[in-house]
Amino acid sequence: MALDRKIRYGMVGGGPGAFIGDIHRSAAALDGEMALVAGAFSSDPEKSRRQGRALHLNPDRVYDTYEQMAAREADRPDGIDVVSIVTPNVLHHDVACAFIEKGIHVVCDKPMTTTRADAEVLCRRVEEHDVIFALTHNYAGYPLVKQARALVDQGRLGALRKVVVEYPQGWLNRRLEAEGDKQAAWRTDPETAGAGALADIGTHAEHLVRYVTGLRLERLCADVGTVVEGRAVDDDASILARFEGGVRGLLHCSQVSTGEENNLRLRVYGTEAGLDWRQEDPHRLRLLTDLHGDRPQQVYTHGRASLADSVQPFLRTPQGHPEGFIEAFANIYRPVARTLAARKAGDDPPDWADDYPTVQDGARGVHFVETALESSRRQAWVDASYTPPGA
Amino acid sequence: MALDRKIRYGMVGGGPGAFIGDIHRSAAALDGEMALVAGAFSSDPEKSRRQGRALHLNPDRVYDTYEQMAAREADRPDGIDVVSIVTPNVLHHDVACAFIEKGIHVVCDKPMTTTRADAEVLCRRVEEHDVIFALTHNYAGYPLVKQARALVDQGRLGALRKVVVEYPQGWLNRRLEAEGDKQAAWRTDPETAGAGALADIGTHAEHLVRYVTGLRLERLCADVGTVVEGRAVDDDASILARFEGGVRGLLHCSQVSTGEENNLRLRVYGTEAGLDWRQEDPHRLRLLTDLHGDRPQQVYTHGRASLADSVQPFLRTPQGHPEGFIEAFANIYRPVARTLAARKAGDDPPDWADDYPTVQDGARGVHFVETALESSRRQAWVDASYTPPGA
Amino acid sequence: MALDRKIRYGMVGGGPGAFIGDIHRSAAALDGEMALVAGAFSSDPEKSRRQGRALHLNPDRVYDTYEQMAAREADRPDGIDVVSIVTPNVLHHDVACAFIEKGIHVVCDKPMTTTRADAEVLCRRVEEHDVIFALTHNYAGYPLVKQARALVDQGRLGALRKVVVEYPQGWLNRRLEAEGDKQAAWRTDPETAGAGALADIGTHAEHLVRYVTGLRLERLCADVGTVVEGRAVDDDASILARFEGGVRGLLHCSQVSTGEENNLRLRVYGTEAGLDWRQEDPHRLRLLTDLHGDRPQQVYTHGRASLADSVQPFLRTPQGHPEGFIEAFANIYRPVARTLAARKAGDDPPDWADDYPTVQDGARGVHFVETALESSRRQAWVDASYTPPGA
Amino acid sequence: MALDRKIRYGMVGGGPGAFIGDIHRSAAALDGEMALVAGAFSSDPEKSRRQGRALHLNPDRVYDTYEQMAAREADRPDGIDVVSIVTPNVLHHDVACAFIEKGIHVVCDKPMTTTRADAEVLCRRVEEHDVIFALTHNYAGYPLVKQARALVDQGRLGALRKVVVEYPQGWLNRRLEAEGDKQAAWRTDPETAGAGALADIGTHAEHLVRYVTGLRLERLCADVGTVVEGRAVDDDASILARFEGGVRGLLHCSQVSTGEENNLRLRVYGTEAGLDWRQEDPHRLRLLTDLHGDRPQQVYTHGRASLADSVQPFLRTPQGHPEGFIEAFANIYRPVARTLAARKAGDDPPDWADDYPTVQDGARGVHFVETALESSRRQAWVDASYTPPGA
Repeated sequence: MALDRKIRYGMVGGGPGAFIGDIHRSAAALDGEMALVAGAFSSDPEKSRRQGRALHLNPDRVYDTYEQMAAREADRPDGIDVVSIVTPNVLHHDVACAFIEKGIHVVCDKPMTTTRADAEVLCRRVEEHDVIFALTHNYAGYPLVKQARALVDQGRLGALRKVVVEYPQGWLNRRLEAEGDKQAAWRTDPETAGAGALADIGTHAEHLVRYVTGLRLERLCADVGTVVEGRAVDDDASILARFEGGVRGLLHCSQVSTGEENNLRLRVYGTEAGLDWRQEDPHRLRLLTDLHGDRPQQVYTHGRASLADSVQPFLRTPQGHPEGFIEAFANIYRPVARTLAARKAGDDPPDWADDYPTVQDGARGVHFVETALESSRRQAWVDASYTPPGA
Repeated sequence: MALDRKIRYGMVGGGPGAFIGDIHRSAAALDGEMALVAGAFSSDPEKSRRQGRALHLNPDRVYDTYEQMAAREADRPDGIDVVSIVTPNVLHHDVACAFIEKGIHVVCDKPMTTTRADAEVLCRRVEEHDVIFALTHNYAGYPLVKQARALVDQGRLGALRKVVVEYPQGWLNRRLEAEGDKQAAWRTDPETAGAGALADIGTHAEHLVRYVTGLRLERLCADVGTVVEGRAVDDDASILARFEGGVRGLLHCSQVSTGEENNLRLRVYGTEAGLDWRQEDPHRLRLLTDLHGDRPQQVYTHGRASLADSVQPFLRTPQGHPEGFIEAFANIYRPVARTLAARKAGDDPPDWADDYPTVQDGARGVHFVETALESSRRQAWVDASYTPPGA
Repeated sequence: MALDRKIRYGMVGGGPGAFIGDIHRSAAALDGEMALVAGAFSSDPEKSRRQGRALHLNPDRVYDTYEQMAAREADRPDGIDVVSIVTPNVLHHDVACAFIEKGIHVVCDKPMTTTRADAEVLCRRVEEHDVIFALTHNYAGYPLVKQARALVDQGRLGALRKVVVEYPQGWLNRRLEAEGDKQAAWRTDPETAGAGALADIGTHAEHLVRYVTGLRLERLCADVGTVVEGRAVDDDASILARFEGGVRGLLHCSQVSTGEENNLRLRVYGTEAGLDWRQEDPHRLRLLTDLHGDRPQQVYTHGRASLADSVQPFLRTPQGHPEGFIEAFANIYRPVARTLAARKAGDDPPDWADDYPTVQDGARGVHFVETALESSRRQAWVDASYTPPGA
Repeated sequence: MALDRKIRYGMVGGGPGAFIGDIHRSAAALDGEMALVAGAFSSDPEKSRRQGRALHLNPDRVYDTYEQMAAREADRPDGIDVVSIVTPNVLHHDVACAFIEKGIHVVCDKPMTTTRADAEVLCRRVEEHDVIFALTHNYAGYPLVKQARALVDQGRLGALRKVVVEYPQGWLNRRLEAEGDKQAAWRTDPETAGAGALADIGTHAEHLVRYVTGLRLERLCADVGTVVEGRAVDDDASILARFEGGVRGLLHCSQVSTGEENNLRLRVYGTEAGLDWRQEDPHRLRLLTDLHGDRPQQVYTHGRASLADSVQPFLRTPQGHPEGFIEAFANIYRPVARTLAARKAGDDPPDWADDYPTVQDGARGVHFVETALESSRRQAWVDASYTPPGA
């Protein structure tokens, strides 16, 4: 295998037992265009080395710290092209800066940072060093989400009027973080996660709306709270929203909705039609046609010729062959890999290769979290408009 | 046919072409226990008579006005036992009072009145005259809604934490009221309807929560608006809510969600489980079991032995034989008819015969509408607690 | 109430506790166009009288025998216009003949008779006496089934190629007939029911295919059996079929498919599209568009303007307001009542008033049962073509 | 990357544009345990080399013929451990033999061979050379299919009574093979594919039944045909079946069911419960509980703690994070890779590592195709019992 032909990547975080590290690695591996060649998988060097062995890495390229990794990989002729950052949220900023400064591209998990100030620093660094920065709002990777975006773009919904996005989960319906669950522990610790449900899943919901509709948030009124006694972060949020042009919105997310699995859902209504997509049934997109017209409801399905041209580059299977969460995740990696491969070859990347969430998306997400928390504290509507650096 | 053995009822409203009048008549007819024998079907006497003929009524018992009807029926030895009021909302109060004062029982469409003052008058009149007053919040008539209530009562959800209720429709996505649509015309005219979406369908949503959970509303923050230009009433509302015990809630309803049909849905989450019911698929109720437990999700279905005892009296068909909107509506009439039949026979009605929405439910609904409108005007959280007379 | 203006009907069978009698009565009552005025509800005169009282009938018109009822009602100036026959299958023929000979119209439950010879007698009697004979293959009454038929008629499927119809139930998965269940007892007794699952539900499936596609059966190969030990009739059947024009088919039905409720489903595939309808979700009809075309899948829903003109007369509610089993049943009664009302008034009935299953449909169903049983006995393909008298 | 630590595999077939080659490569890559290092991707050496370059392979290990590849890889110290065979069906036998004889393990696409004689040769060769042979009946890789098997094993269905398996597709509803579609061309050419729908998808259905229930087929009666004029192989089949113990069965598959995508579905009914799984909604498994019991229907969902222990090793994501077709495919590769890794390390593979379809499964599939074709030709029931060599 001629590794020099593949895009070389390294990983920071994703040590033994980390769910999201596995997902990133599977997503990066899926298309055979990227090879994992380096890593600093844990703040515990022994764990990092153990993970390196499990992943069949060259021990020389398994590092004790991300700083070391950034420095040494930058010096190698066969150093990594891109780094995947899958640490707890609080570290994203520092890790990203370390690699960006070396001119190494970044794929970063969400939420991007734990403060807006950090997010804005990242926006500027990305611009200064002209690197690619992709944020893994992976739900934007689903082909039917891209189809939803295409329908809006084509004007099939008419003028937009209302957006309802929701993201109920139930896995934190009790205080798991006090029972030794590591996932729960870092995600509910303000020191490592920043905020709770709002940061972890609310930002996905916020991004999904923006990705599909392009609408900018203007005002919001939030009710954010902690339902499970003793928890240190928010675990439930309901938010009234107004977007540009007076479009009305509603966003709610929860990690204490007992029995809900991962039920992200987006509905958008316009003057001519509505649309409805649900992550637990991601192969289908319902187009809600006008009751007064002569067309029945429509259901777009994965892999069909009826999907828009902009969706086709993100399909791996034909109709009736479900793609899932990992493939959607891989659809964030795919345009990054394609762009880097094109650059290496001195070619222009294809049009669709800029279809991934950016550092500005990340800043908007962090701003959204801060604004919602402020609104909830004040129990009032607040201004939510925002333009991040570089947007 | 020995009509004297059936419960005799009359109708006010429900003239030619009125959708809801047909539904009430079908619902009342379904069990063969009630006979329509009188009516004042329209404010236009000619239309009233035409409808009387179409319904095969004795012309002597088709009246020009409801006042006339109340007076004459009260005087007849074979006069009506109960009146169904299906006029535009603004008339409910006056019509109901006319019959209550004659000791005639009432089945009334919702919303009960257009002002809280009127609603409270009705509460008092019902008490004074000791009549039955049933409000047709027909969605409470679905057997699987009753099963949801039973699951909450049995503690299967544990302590309640969150409620999400929504009611999107799309039929008013354009200004139908300006195109000669009579339904749309009276439902969007403040003179006849009072309020818009909030009154017409928001009250159904509000009642459904109360019916299933028993929770009292304490505070709310509403965003109510008119999306279709030129419309005189609200057509979209999103509401953050808090119920007693700190239970969080979210209620949204809309008549401009293009492509949505009649998509009332209720989700309730407790410490132990959640539940999910949807009016467009009314034969099923999902019980969302705790992710950490060893039980898969459960789906209760219509007509099964696994439904609670309290549900069984409201079933007409066995498993797999769908009952629908009319049958749910008939489940408001059924306990009324059974109660009246028992009284006539000098018997005690069965336990389940008090399972219908009451005049106090109506007052709570009207109070909810007024409170939401006030909150939206003030763009602020407001107190929403309320105890109607007689509660 | 001017009863003389309604269509007067009587009932044979449908005594206390009989499920299907209740359904017929609710179905006939739903539109307010028919009045039940007479009955011979049981072979036990005491039970018949008890049922008459429960139904508020005039005791003079509650009869000890159906012969007595036919004779006396025929003599009354206000005698019944039509009789509903809801007895066990074996009696359908004799009861129907008794009324037909008096010129009284018939609504008869299915299967029409227990022998083809009896069925053919009925075909001839109906012709001789020029009465209306409607067979309650109630599933043909669902609006979305009528929409399926309209799509086939309009050529939306292209040339038909394949039909799959199935009807799994699970209620007879054990020997209920030996546990005192009366429904199970008569339906599994060859003396009262004729055959088992094939007659009880297989005939519904067979009719549904014919109703939607118009295809005539030509050949079949059946595997019919009794799964539950000790049962006296068939309870499971799988049948390979060929229709005219070489259209391939598959029909299976079962009453021992544990956990299945009433899961009748029809799929039809043509050169251009397919369709899929399921009785447990009757408000929707899926149109499976060609994978190679640019149209996504379509879903027709109840009450929409997009339904065909031929469907509209059979709707009672607008979009999103589910109609169910009883309403579908009532859609067999509706055209009968409308036809009789038109005749009484000297008018022509509307076009749609001949849309109900006929005596010839009944004969085809009985022939189908006999042919399938013969094929299964011989374990061979057999000729299944058939033209009943009068067809 | 220390490739020597990964399982090294090569591929035969899977040249440019071949759908199934991509799927195999993605599936093998997903877990990071296997590395593609060699290939003979096409019978056209130029195409093979082109594909090798696209896959970043060392040109020395891209071969002109599979014979050459088998010989040279067997000679290399770092030669492949296992070969993936994804050629047209007719080549599977010869290619597999070439590698088996060198002691190289095999993952082979289905159907295994085009004749039973070839299949039996393979059974013997596998035994003689003691290699692993895994057949990619990938649908057995879905976690919820494994859960179905676990429920049967645990006796949750009671004694089995009936099986219904179906596999409708619509992509060959016209003569694509005459329009330049390469997929269609080889799959409908008897020279390359052997049989048509029966071989391509009927064998998946047949295997799925066996995998979940363990039942052996005893007799069958098939109606197999060619619906699209001019096509050289079967494209539609319906089959009555009997399994051991008198269990009744029905299997149908089609590639001309217009509008169907890839709608494989399995239902199994026992004395105590039924189960229902559908490939287009693979994250859920319905357990149809007995109507007479007090338990509602159950829905097992992907990733839940409620799944059986035997399912857990095949999950990559937690609840609500859909896995799809590629992950199911990867679940055939996973136990192969794990077994080989254990052997290399001198360890015992885990218990679950023998959970993949074997060479005997392949022989049974080929026998099933031949038997069904014979039954259809004779239009008769035929004996379908069979024990392949080594079973």
